[in-house]
Amino acid sequence: MPKKLIVDVCFSPYLYPMYHRPDSIVVVIDILRATSAMCTAFEFGVDKMIPVASLEEATEYKKQGFLVGAERNGIAIEGFDFGNSPYSYQTEKIKGQTIVISTTNGTQAIEAARQAYQVVIGAFTNITSLCNWLKTQNRDVLLLCSGWKNKFNLEDTLFAGAVSDILLAEHNLFRSGDGALAASYLYTSAQKNPYKYLRNSSHTERLSEMGLKHDIKYCLTFDKTDIIPVLDGKYLIRLNK
Amino acid sequence: MPKKLIVDVCFSPYLYPMYHRPDSIVVVIDILRATSAMCTAFEFGVDKMIPVASLEEATEYKKQGFLVGAERNGIAIEGFDFGNSPYSYQTEKIKGQTIVISTTNGTQAIEAARQAYQVVIGAFTNITSLCNWLKTQNRDVLLLCSGWKNKFNLEDTLFAGAVSDILLAEHNLFRSGDGALAASYLYTSAQKNPYKYLRNSSHTERLSEMGLKHDIKYCLTFDKTDIIPVLDGKYLIRLNK
Repeated sequence: MPKKLIVDVCFSPYLYPMYHRPDSIVVVIDILRATSAMCTAFEFGVDKMIPVASLEEATEYKKQGFLVGAERNGIAIEGFDFGNSPYSYQTEKIKGQTIVISTTNGTQAIEAARQAYQVVIGAFTNITSLCNWLKTQNRDVLLLCSGWKNKFNLEDTLFAGAVSDILLAEHNLFRSGDGALAASYLYTSAQKNPYKYLRNSSHTERLSEMGLKHDIKYCLTFDKTDIIPVLDGKYLIRLNK
Repeated sequence: MPKKLIVDVCFSPYLYPMYHRPDSIVVVIDILRATSAMCTAFEFGVDKMIPVASLEEATEYKKQGFLVGAERNGIAIEGFDFGNSPYSYQTEKIKGQTIVISTTNGTQAIEAARQAYQVVIGAFTNITSLCNWLKTQNRDVLLLCSGWKNKFNLEDTLFAGAVSDILLAEHNLFRSGDGALAASYLYTSAQKNPYKYLRNSSHTERLSEMGLKHDIKYCLTFDKTDIIPVLDGKYLIRLNK
């Protein structure tokens, strides 16, 4: 019997070095809202995205004439074209464009995982397509939660649990690390009503106070797209375009 | 209404700097088996323990004539007096002694948290006493899981969840960070049979293969002692002795 592939979850970009294996596929997760927004942007026809960790880089690209999304602490930064609400990317003007994005947590996680074999973008909005693809890759999978300023957060963990659950259902193919086991237990108890489950979580509370419940519901919706964004050098592009 | 105190969980000693607050009480957790063993040692009359992170330090103390416990990867190291099985500390010879201990994960976590306001040792075996004390301290509580080589592990998380659950039942006193919320959800779903729940976890599997099921059951038993070990300089001593 061939050795089973490992599915595990890393709960913070800061912890990534402890989990790094050069042959693994890393799925970067920032459900509220960076990776959800990225999936939306590709669904609405963006050609490439450039994720950048710092606002300085974002500003530099803006000066060069790029469309740029920039968010910190849940708020879109003035002078840029988008924040990280998925709705802000539902526009004709991104079609065929290369756009830049910098967010509080998600783009930092992409940066942390750059040395992985392959880095792809995951969200509830592309989950089925993502899992179907992961099942065919014959590689260990690390689900990297962006968290909140390098701390654990609940919404990224639930998504990691949902993916773990789907992959681990392939008993002959995958086995779980402790992180995937815990995330999957959590997802199982939350799945009837993830929105309600997340109500007490810190970031959901933060966004609700900002009047962004609409965004949260969107980000918890399955399968709005079948596109999987993948990191290719400094760009995110569509996988298998 | 006074501001509520925060209970949160840090899932790896490596992540501790992200959670450090100088005024918090940190509970160090290494259920299988370092912190369980420490509680046992105090229950059996040890006077002080010196937790050391490196085997070099442990060896140095051994040369000086101390009784020393040393474990790496679940195995007691030859030439020392104890491993980290709680049973190995159930002996008359530790009574009134100062003994030294170095383990794979637990002593590293103590080292990581040294700058906290206060560092105490938690295990299922002293949980009620620990929680009763925490409720009276009027301080934020950080539950620091030792994990496994800086990765997340399930058994420490379950214990962190059990403590979170007990503290958060004091609605007017404590509120939860996301880590405590997740750990508490996990504990709630595991509490009917934690042993069964942990069966698939990596370290439980590792110890079971070593024939240490007896140890695991001991370490999941509530309230074998009412002693809370506390860090005092380089020593662990009994709180309120």
